[in-house]
Amino acid sequence: MLQDYQLLRIPGPTPIPPSIQQAMMKPMIGHRDLETKKLVNSIRPGLKKIFGAEEEVAIISGSGTSGLEAAVVNAVNPGDEVLVIITGSFGDRFAQICEAYQLHVHKLHYEWGKAFIPEEIASFLASHPSIKAVFATYCETSTGVLNPIKELAKTIKQNSDALIIIDGVSCIGAVETKLDEWGIDLCVTGSQKAFMLPPGLTFIAGSKRAWNIIEKSNNPRFYLDLRKYRKAIQDNSTPFTPALSLLYGLEQSLMLLEKEQLHHVYKRHHVMKEMTRAAFKAIDIPLLTIDEDASPTVTAIKPDNFEADVLREMLKKEFGLILAGGQSKLKGKIFRIGHMGYSSPADILQIISLVELGLHKIGKINELGIGVRAAQQVYIQEE
Amino acid sequence: MLQDYQLLRIPGPTPIPPSIQQAMMKPMIGHRDLETKKLVNSIRPGLKKIFGAEEEVAIISGSGTSGLEAAVVNAVNPGDEVLVIITGSFGDRFAQICEAYQLHVHKLHYEWGKAFIPEEIASFLASHPSIKAVFATYCETSTGVLNPIKELAKTIKQNSDALIIIDGVSCIGAVETKLDEWGIDLCVTGSQKAFMLPPGLTFIAGSKRAWNIIEKSNNPRFYLDLRKYRKAIQDNSTPFTPALSLLYGLEQSLMLLEKEQLHHVYKRHHVMKEMTRAAFKAIDIPLLTIDEDASPTVTAIKPDNFEADVLREMLKKEFGLILAGGQSKLKGKIFRIGHMGYSSPADILQIISLVELGLHKIGKINELGIGVRAAQQVYIQEE
Repeated sequence: MLQDYQLLRIPGPTPIPPSIQQAMMKPMIGHRDLETKKLVNSIRPGLKKIFGAEEEVAIISGSGTSGLEAAVVNAVNPGDEVLVIITGSFGDRFAQICEAYQLHVHKLHYEWGKAFIPEEIASFLASHPSIKAVFATYCETSTGVLNPIKELAKTIKQNSDALIIIDGVSCIGAVETKLDEWGIDLCVTGSQKAFMLPPGLTFIAGSKRAWNIIEKSNNPRFYLDLRKYRKAIQDNSTPFTPALSLLYGLEQSLMLLEKEQLHHVYKRHHVMKEMTRAAFKAIDIPLLTIDEDASPTVTAIKPDNFEADVLREMLKKEFGLILAGGQSKLKGKIFRIGHMGYSSPADILQIISLVELGLHKIGKINELGIGVRAAQQVYIQEE
Repeated sequence: MLQDYQLLRIPGPTPIPPSIQQAMMKPMIGHRDLETKKLVNSIRPGLKKIFGAEEEVAIISGSGTSGLEAAVVNAVNPGDEVLVIITGSFGDRFAQICEAYQLHVHKLHYEWGKAFIPEEIASFLASHPSIKAVFATYCETSTGVLNPIKELAKTIKQNSDALIIIDGVSCIGAVETKLDEWGIDLCVTGSQKAFMLPPGLTFIAGSKRAWNIIEKSNNPRFYLDLRKYRKAIQDNSTPFTPALSLLYGLEQSLMLLEKEQLHHVYKRHHVMKEMTRAAFKAIDIPLLTIDEDASPTVTAIKPDNFEADVLREMLKKEFGLILAGGQSKLKGKIFRIGHMGYSSPADILQIISLVELGLHKIGKINELGIGVRAAQQVYIQEE
């Protein structure tokens, strides 16, 4: 096989655009020098825009999990009653973090592959009025579900003062997010998804209300103390040595997203989702989620007559195409296609054409080109 | 549209594999230091293998044209009678170089899009016994024709001592080449095609007979004096400052080709050609060349009911897919798909799916997925 060839189509890390790769190769600068201040200054407005947040967005050098932990450690206190909505593996992760900090954790479990129902959350809150915060996942990466965050916030606000804390790691930047307008309190994401960067940065946006709580919190914390990040970024700085090359990349990433325009970015992700789903429907291989719950950033497929991992291994070996498998209770049962960040409808067509070849090779489809055609038709309709 | 996204599918420059891109970023070294000697030493055997040449291959820092000129200025003399076989734009180029050096140039023209016929060359030589050299193009990039070089050499050898000088720029490394075994005297290629490198290097392999002539030639020449390159490379060096980053890249390129194995590389190119041709036949858009004449590295399509350049512009604007147009007398009449070097069957499927969308948009096809299916079927059959 052609060497050094790889089609990375997992739900993060995603491929890196050449201009970002290049930007990250700029020489190091002093992280307390004017150059870094200029860099941070140029990043601030774009980041706020993506979250729809008026307040400054904290930039922590760390993985998405550190961002989730920062949300927990800054916004709630040991013993606080909180609700974690679990729709998959990353809902579980949020709950684990809450438990590590000895919160009093209520969990609402939904079947993996389904979105939560905001009204059910509201009624749970009505019967548990002392809940201080609700933790939810925007895109559940493990299932390809996009949860109804806007509706959740709206429903909660009607009857509860609970903070609304969102894990948006695998979708912020690819789907519309209006933190202030919707009434979200904290929203976390990572660099290696829709931002088209390598992993290593996490971004946390907060409402005025959240920042007031954070400022007053006495929880023990140091590296993840969001107050430090907020204070620093207001001075175009960072509290600790930042991952400088990733900041260079972030500056370029925001420039690319600005140039494409966010509404076009969202549309592109929507079209990729629709193309992917239409293809698998056409070749009659079940999708894990229903249309209404599907995320524009990742699609999970749940084959009922072959091993997902057999197909994945073959696609990797034969074409260098890397798809993701299932996690935790879905391990071996699904495969997932990432279509976010530096990813285009042209890539979807390529993925589908290769998946078709793979399915043909393992004897699961006879006719070729059916899925590609369905995806092509969606592309034309969506224009 | 997704910014910074480009699918470069022209017949060179071709895309660069990441590991080559990385190799080219190594720090500069002294071009007379031991490090450069080691680099040149590691390059020599791989280069000879690709040409099927026992003699050292000259590496000139310059474009392919400088390599073609080097062949002319080193192997023949002003006033010499030579034959240039012209099957397209690059045959013309070879003739222009010969004329610039005041050779007595005979030209045999073939219709653009067709391969030459070796027997006709042999009979021309029989009636012109004073011809000292025959210049021919292996892959005619402008038409996507692969000329029968092996048969040409065999036929010529039977009745003539004329040198056989080959422009192999757009195919060496992608198609079998056995310079010594076939009886080719000089063969030239460039770095930006099957070698998966940027432009900037040209490689010239020669037979023992050719090197004897070159060594004795008194033609005025300095930078393109092949004797200097031969002498230098035998000492793991270069006569003039080499394009060092491209040498780093070449070392990596040869490693990748070696790892894939040349017969697999040739097969991959063959499969890409067959997939591309099957797709256009399936969607009923005429190919410029017949199957027997088609090159594994580039395919020319000659639409009869739409403007080739309208499709090209649309594919570029809509998908970032860059195809080549026609050159010289084929300008505006054809479009060309490059499928050489860092290019895989997966890329062919992507190109075809996008071309189908483009054709649908300009109203030239109704049914989608037909071309992709034909290409997929070829892939399966060819395994």
